[in-house]
Amino acid sequence: MQFKIRAATKGDCKEVSRMIMELAVYEKMPDQVKISHEELERDGFCQNPFFECLVAEVPEEHKSKEGLTIVGYALYFYTYSTWKGRTQYLEDLYVMPEFRGNGIGKGLLSKVAEVGKTKECVRLQLSVLNWNKPSLDFYAAKGAQDLTASEGWHFIRFDGQNLENLANEAPKDE
Amino acid sequence: MQFKIRAATKGDCKEVSRMIMELAVYEKMPDQVKISHEELERDGFCQNPFFECLVAEVPEEHKSKEGLTIVGYALYFYTYSTWKGRTQYLEDLYVMPEFRGNGIGKGLLSKVAEVGKTKECVRLQLSVLNWNKPSLDFYAAKGAQDLTASEGWHFIRFDGQNLENLANEAPKDE
Repeated sequence: MQFKIRAATKGDCKEVSRMIMELAVYEKMPDQVKISHEELERDGFCQNPFFECLVAEVPEEHKSKEGLTIVGYALYFYTYSTWKGRTQYLEDLYVMPEFRGNGIGKGLLSKVAEVGKTKECVRLQLSVLNWNKPSLDFYAAKGAQDLTASEGWHFIRFDGQNLENLANEAPKDE
Repeated sequence: MQFKIRAATKGDCKEVSRMIMELAVYEKMPDQVKISHEELERDGFCQNPFFECLVAEVPEEHKSKEGLTIVGYALYFYTYSTWKGRTQYLEDLYVMPEFRGNGIGKGLLSKVAEVGKTKECVRLQLSVLNWNKPSLDFYAAKGAQDLTASEGWHFIRFDGQNLENLANEAPKDE
Protein backbone atom coordinates (compact mmCIF):
# COMPACT_ATOMS: atom_id res chain seq x y z
CA MET A 1 0.00 0.00 0.00
CA GLN A 2 1.19 3.48 -0.86
CA PHE A 3 1.71 5.80 2.09
CA LYS A 4 3.59 8.95 2.94
CA ILE A 5 5.33 9.89 6.15
CA ARG A 6 5.68 13.56 6.99
CA ALA A 7 6.16 15.90 9.94
CA ALA A 8 2.88 16.59 11.72
CA THR A 9 1.53 20.12 11.51
CA LYS A 10 -0.54 21.95 14.10
CA GLY A 11 -3.55 21.13 11.94
CA ASP A 12 -2.91 17.39 12.42
CA CYS A 13 -3.24 17.52 16.20
CA LYS A 14 -6.92 16.52 16.17
CA GLU A 15 -6.08 13.39 14.19
CA VAL A 16 -3.08 12.62 16.41
CA SER A 17 -5.28 13.10 19.47
CA ARG A 18 -7.84 10.68 17.97
CA MET A 19 -5.10 8.05 17.50
CA ILE A 20 -3.66 8.61 21.01
CA MET A 21 -7.10 7.65 22.28
CA GLU A 22 -7.30 4.60 19.99
CA LEU A 23 -3.92 3.43 21.32
CA ALA A 24 -5.10 3.91 24.92
CA VAL A 25 -8.24 1.89 24.18
CA TYR A 26 -6.01 -0.89 22.75
CA GLU A 27 -3.99 -0.72 25.98
CA LYS A 28 -7.26 -0.86 27.95
CA MET A 29 -6.62 2.45 29.70
CA PRO A 30 -8.67 5.10 27.81
CA ASP A 31 -9.56 6.89 31.06
CA GLN A 32 -5.86 7.69 31.51
CA VAL A 33 -5.80 10.17 28.62
CA LYS A 34 -5.97 13.63 30.11
CA ILE A 35 -4.76 15.75 27.21
CA SER A 36 -6.56 16.92 24.11
CA HIS A 37 -5.50 18.33 20.77
CA GLU A 38 -5.27 21.80 22.33
CA GLU A 39 -2.40 20.71 24.60
CA LEU A 40 -0.70 18.97 21.70
CA GLU A 41 -0.95 22.16 19.66
CA ARG A 42 0.44 24.22 22.52
CA ASP A 43 3.26 21.88 23.55
CA GLY A 44 4.43 20.63 20.17
CA PHE A 45 4.26 23.84 18.18
CA CYS A 46 5.84 26.43 20.46
CA GLN A 47 9.38 27.67 20.78
CA ASN A 48 11.35 24.86 22.44
CA PRO A 49 8.65 22.27 21.67
CA PHE A 50 8.22 19.41 24.14
CA PHE A 51 7.95 16.86 21.32
CA GLU A 52 8.00 16.31 17.58
CA CYS A 53 5.58 14.12 15.66
CA LEU A 54 5.41 12.31 12.33
CA VAL A 55 2.20 11.14 10.70
CA ALA A 56 1.56 8.45 8.10
CA GLU A 57 -0.92 9.38 5.40
CA VAL A 58 -2.54 7.20 2.75
CA PRO A 59 -4.02 8.46 -0.51
CA GLU A 60 -7.77 9.07 -0.75
CA GLU A 61 -8.38 5.77 -2.54
CA HIS A 62 -7.06 3.88 0.47
CA LYS A 63 -8.89 5.85 3.13
CA SER A 64 -10.32 3.97 6.12
CA LYS A 65 -13.95 2.93 6.31
CA GLU A 66 -14.59 6.09 8.37
CA GLY A 67 -12.97 8.20 5.62
CA LEU A 68 -9.66 8.81 7.44
CA THR A 69 -6.38 9.23 5.60
CA ILE A 70 -4.04 9.87 8.56
CA VAL A 71 -3.55 6.33 9.76
CA GLY A 72 -0.49 6.30 12.02
CA TYR A 73 1.84 8.49 14.02
CA ALA A 74 5.16 8.49 15.84
CA LEU A 75 5.66 10.97 18.67
CA TYR A 76 9.21 11.46 19.96
CA PHE A 77 11.47 13.97 21.66
CA TYR A 78 15.13 14.61 22.30
CA THR A 79 16.82 13.31 25.41
CA TYR A 80 20.42 13.31 26.59
CA SER A 81 22.97 10.82 27.82
CA THR A 82 25.78 12.23 29.95
CA TRP A 83 27.96 9.43 28.56
CA LYS A 84 27.04 9.52 24.88
CA GLY A 85 25.39 12.87 24.19
CA ARG A 86 22.26 13.45 22.12
CA THR A 87 19.61 10.77 22.10
CA GLN A 88 15.97 10.33 21.11
CA TYR A 89 13.02 8.82 22.89
CA LEU A 90 10.04 7.37 21.05
CA GLU A 91 6.98 7.90 23.22
CA ASP A 92 4.33 6.45 20.90
CA LEU A 93 4.31 4.50 17.66
CA TYR A 94 0.87 3.61 16.33
CA VAL A 95 -0.74 2.37 13.16
CA MET A 96 -4.50 1.87 12.86
CA PRO A 97 -5.29 -1.88 12.93
CA GLU A 98 -6.72 -2.05 9.41
CA PHE A 99 -3.52 -0.53 7.99
CA ARG A 100 -1.06 -2.84 9.72
CA GLY A 101 1.15 -5.22 7.77
CA ASN A 102 2.01 -2.62 5.14
CA GLY A 103 5.34 -1.45 6.52
CA ILE A 104 3.88 1.78 7.93
CA GLY A 105 5.08 1.12 11.49
CA LYS A 106 8.54 0.27 10.27
CA GLY A 107 8.47 3.35 8.03
CA LEU A 108 7.57 5.64 10.95
CA LEU A 109 10.25 4.09 13.17
CA SER A 110 12.94 4.42 10.50
CA LYS A 111 11.97 7.99 9.77
CA VAL A 112 12.32 8.90 13.45
CA ALA A 113 15.82 7.38 13.40
CA GLU A 114 16.64 9.30 10.23
CA VAL A 115 15.56 12.60 11.82
CA GLY A 116 17.70 11.69 14.83
CA LYS A 117 20.69 11.03 12.63
CA THR A 118 20.50 14.52 11.16
CA LYS A 119 20.72 15.83 14.74
CA GLU A 120 23.62 13.50 15.61
CA CYS A 121 21.56 11.41 18.04
CA VAL A 122 23.38 8.20 18.98
CA ARG A 123 20.49 6.32 20.57
CA LEU A 124 16.79 5.80 20.07
CA GLN A 125 15.02 4.50 23.15
CA LEU A 126 11.50 3.56 24.10
CA SER A 127 9.56 1.50 26.65
CA VAL A 128 7.37 -1.53 26.17
CA LEU A 129 5.19 -3.41 28.64
CA ASN A 130 6.51 -6.91 29.34
CA TRP A 131 3.18 -8.52 28.30
CA ASN A 132 3.27 -6.78 24.92
CA LYS A 133 5.05 -9.60 23.12
CA PRO A 134 4.23 -8.42 19.55
CA SER A 135 5.91 -5.06 20.23
CA LEU A 136 8.89 -6.60 22.04
CA ASP A 137 9.37 -8.93 19.07
CA PHE A 138 8.93 -6.10 16.55
CA TYR A 139 11.74 -4.05 18.12
CA ALA A 140 13.99 -7.03 18.81
CA ALA A 141 13.69 -8.12 15.17
CA LYS A 142 15.05 -4.72 14.18
CA GLY A 143 18.07 -5.08 16.45
CA ALA A 144 16.98 -3.28 19.63
CA GLN A 145 18.23 -4.46 23.01
CA ASP A 146 15.99 -4.95 26.03
CA LEU A 147 17.99 -3.08 28.68
CA THR A 148 15.70 -4.08 31.51
CA ALA A 149 16.33 -7.74 30.71
CA SER A 150 20.05 -7.40 29.94
CA GLU A 151 21.20 -4.75 32.41
CA GLY A 152 18.39 -4.51 34.95
CA TRP A 153 17.27 -0.92 34.41
CA HIS A 154 14.07 -0.04 36.28
CA PHE A 155 11.75 2.86 35.56
CA ILE A 156 11.03 5.08 38.52
CA ARG A 157 8.29 7.70 38.63
CA PHE A 158 7.17 10.54 40.87
CA ASP A 159 3.74 11.99 40.22
CA GLY A 160 0.67 13.37 41.95
CA GLN A 161 1.08 14.11 45.63
CA ASN A 162 4.60 12.70 45.97
CA LEU A 163 5.81 14.99 43.15
CA GLU A 164 4.01 17.95 44.71
CA ASN A 165 5.69 17.20 48.04
CA LEU A 166 9.11 17.06 46.41
CA ALA A 167 8.65 20.38 44.65
CA ASN A 168 7.44 22.02 47.82
CA GLU A 169 10.50 20.83 49.72
CA ALA A 170 13.01 22.48 47.38
CA PRO A 171 15.65 24.55 49.20
CA LYS A 172 14.77 28.23 49.06
CA ASP A 173 17.25 30.84 47.92
CA GLU A 174 18.57 32.86 50.81
CA MET B 1 26.32 21.89 56.07
CA GLN B 2 25.46 25.04 54.16
CA PHE B 3 25.04 24.64 50.41
CA LYS B 4 23.42 26.41 47.53
CA ILE B 5 21.65 24.96 44.52
CA ARG B 6 21.59 26.98 41.33
CA ALA B 7 21.22 26.59 37.56
CA ALA B 8 24.49 25.52 35.94
CA THR B 9 26.16 28.03 33.64
CA LYS B 10 28.28 27.30 30.60
CA GLY B 11 31.30 27.97 32.82
CA ASP B 12 30.29 25.06 35.11
CA CYS B 13 30.50 22.46 32.34
CA LYS B 14 34.08 21.46 33.21
CA GLU B 15 33.03 20.72 36.78
CA VAL B 16 29.90 18.89 35.66
CA SER B 17 32.02 16.87 33.23
CA ARG B 18 34.41 15.98 36.08
CA MET B 19 31.48 14.72 38.19
CA ILE B 20 29.96 12.78 35.26
CA MET B 21 33.25 10.88 35.15
CA GLU B 22 33.26 10.34 38.93
CA LEU B 23 29.75 8.88 38.69
CA ALA B 24 30.83 6.58 35.85
CA VAL B 25 33.79 5.40 37.93
CA TYR B 26 31.40 4.66 40.80
CA GLU B 27 29.27 2.70 38.33
CA LYS B 28 32.45 0.89 37.17
CA MET B 29 32.03 2.05 33.56
CA PRO B 30 34.39 5.05 33.10
CA ASP B 31 35.32 3.93 29.58
CA GLN B 32 31.68 4.50 28.56
CA VAL B 33 31.95 8.29 28.86
CA LYS B 34 32.38 9.66 25.36
CA ILE B 35 31.46 13.29 25.87
CA SER B 36 33.47 16.15 27.30
CA HIS B 37 32.65 19.60 28.62
CA GLU B 38 32.69 20.96 25.05
CA GLU B 39 29.66 18.83 24.12
CA LEU B 40 27.91 19.82 27.35
CA GLU B 41 28.51 23.49 26.55
CA ARG B 42 27.22 23.03 23.00
CA ASP B 43 24.17 20.89 23.83
CA GLY B 44 23.03 22.52 27.06
CA PHE B 45 23.53 26.16 26.20
CA CYS B 46 22.12 26.51 22.70
CA GLN B 47 18.69 27.50 21.46
CA ASN B 48 16.42 24.50 22.20
CA PRO B 49 18.90 22.98 24.68
CA PHE B 50 18.99 19.19 24.97
CA PHE B 51 19.14 19.36 28.77
CA GLU B 52 19.15 21.63 31.82
CA CYS B 53 21.43 21.23 34.80
CA LEU B 54 21.56 22.30 38.44
CA VAL B 55 24.72 22.36 40.54
CA ALA B 56 25.22 22.24 44.32
CA GLU B 57 27.87 24.58 45.64
CA VAL B 58 29.38 24.79 49.12
CA PRO B 59 31.07 27.87 50.58
CA GLU B 60 34.89 28.11 50.45
CA GLU B 61 35.26 27.01 54.07
CA HIS B 62 33.65 23.66 53.25
CA LYS B 63 35.56 23.00 50.02
CA SER B 64 36.71 19.45 49.30
CA LYS B 65 40.23 18.27 50.04
CA GLU B 66 41.07 18.98 46.38
CA GLY B 67 39.75 22.53 46.77
CA LEU B 68 36.46 21.95 44.93
CA THR B 69 33.28 23.85 45.81
CA ILE B 70 30.90 22.41 43.16
CA VAL B 71 30.05 19.12 44.81
CA GLY B 72 26.94 17.78 43.12
CA TYR B 73 24.72 18.11 40.07
CA ALA B 74 21.36 17.12 38.66
CA LEU B 75 20.97 16.90 34.89
CA TYR B 76 17.45 16.63 33.50
CA PHE B 77 15.35 17.41 30.46
CA TYR B 78 11.73 17.73 29.41
CA THR B 79 9.83 14.77 28.07
CA TYR B 80 6.20 14.26 27.11
CA SER B 81 3.40 11.88 27.89
CA THR B 82 0.65 11.60 25.29
CA TRP B 83 -1.72 10.82 28.16
CA LYS B 84 -0.66 13.40 30.73
CA GLY B 85 1.30 16.10 28.93
CA ARG B 86 4.55 17.69 30.09
CA THR B 87 6.94 15.57 32.10
CA GLN B 88 10.57 15.66 33.24
CA TYR B 89 13.30 13.06 33.15
CA LEU B 90 16.20 13.08 35.59
CA GLU B 91 19.23 11.65 33.79
CA ASP B 92 21.82 12.04 36.56
CA LEU B 93 21.78 12.95 40.23
CA TYR B 94 25.18 12.95 41.91
CA VAL B 95 26.78 14.19 45.12
CA MET B 96 30.50 13.71 45.81
CA PRO B 97 30.95 10.95 48.42
CA GLU B 98 32.49 13.20 51.10
CA PHE B 99 29.48 15.56 50.90
CA ARG B 100 26.76 12.92 51.21
CA GLY B 101 24.43 12.83 54.20
CA ASN B 102 23.89 16.58 54.20
CA GLY B 103 20.64 16.73 52.25
CA ILE B 104 22.33 17.88 49.05
CA GLY B 105 20.96 15.00 46.94
CA LYS B 106 17.46 15.58 48.28
CA GLY B 107 17.90 19.31 47.69
CA LEU B 108 18.88 18.79 44.06
CA LEU B 109 15.99 16.37 43.49
CA SER B 110 13.44 18.71 45.04
CA LYS B 111 14.75 21.65 43.07
CA VAL B 112 14.35 19.72 39.81
CA ALA B 113 10.74 19.00 40.80
CA GLU B 114 10.22 22.66 41.64
CA VAL B 115 11.51 23.76 38.24
CA GLY B 116 9.21 21.18 36.66
CA LYS B 117 6.26 22.53 38.57
CA THR B 118 6.80 26.02 37.16
CA LYS B 119 6.58 24.43 33.68
CA GLU B 120 3.44 22.44 34.60
CA CYS B 121 5.20 19.08 34.45
CA VAL B 122 3.09 16.32 35.97
CA ARG B 123 5.72 13.60 36.29
CA LEU B 124 9.37 13.27 37.15
CA GLN B 125 10.91 10.03 35.93
CA LEU B 126 14.31 8.38 36.07
CA SER B 127 15.95 4.96 35.78
CA VAL B 128 17.87 2.96 38.35
CA LEU B 129 19.78 -0.30 38.00
CA ASN B 130 18.14 -3.14 39.92
CA TRP B 131 21.33 -3.83 41.92
CA ASN B 132 21.53 -0.20 43.09
CA LYS B 133 19.56 -0.75 46.28
CA PRO B 134 20.62 2.51 48.00
CA SER B 135 19.23 4.55 45.10
CA LEU B 136 16.06 2.46 44.79
CA ASP B 137 15.48 2.96 48.52
CA PHE B 138 16.26 6.68 48.30
CA TYR B 139 13.60 7.28 45.65
CA ALA B 140 11.06 4.90 47.18
CA ALA B 141 11.41 6.68 50.53
CA LYS B 142 10.39 9.89 48.78
CA GLY B 143 7.29 8.31 47.31
CA ALA B 144 8.41 7.22 43.84
CA GLN B 145 6.93 4.11 42.24
CA ASP B 146 9.02 1.43 40.53
CA LEU B 147 7.09 1.06 37.27
CA THR B 148 9.16 -1.87 36.05
CA ALA B 149 8.25 -3.80 39.18
CA SER B 150 4.60 -2.69 39.35
CA GLU B 151 3.59 -2.45 35.68
CA GLY B 152 6.32 -4.35 33.82
CA TRP B 153 7.78 -1.53 31.72
CA HIS B 154 10.96 -2.54 29.89
CA PHE B 155 13.56 -0.20 28.43
CA ILE B 156 14.38 -0.78 24.80
CA ARG B 157 17.33 0.73 22.97
CA PHE B 158 18.62 1.06 19.43
CA ASP B 159 22.19 2.22 19.01
CA GLY B 160 25.30 1.69 16.91
CA GLN B 161 24.80 -0.35 13.76
CA ASN B 162 21.17 -1.25 14.39
CA LEU B 163 20.28 2.46 14.73
CA GLU B 164 22.27 3.28 11.62
CA ASN B 165 20.40 0.55 9.73
CA LEU B 166 17.06 1.90 10.85
CA ALA B 167 17.88 5.44 9.78
CA ASN B 168 19.08 4.25 6.39
CA GLU B 169 15.87 2.33 5.79
CA ALA B 170 13.60 5.36 6.19
CA PRO B 171 11.08 5.78 3.37
CA LYS B 172 12.26 8.39 0.89
CA ASP B 173 10.04 11.23 -0.22
CA GLU B 174 8.78 10.73 -3.74
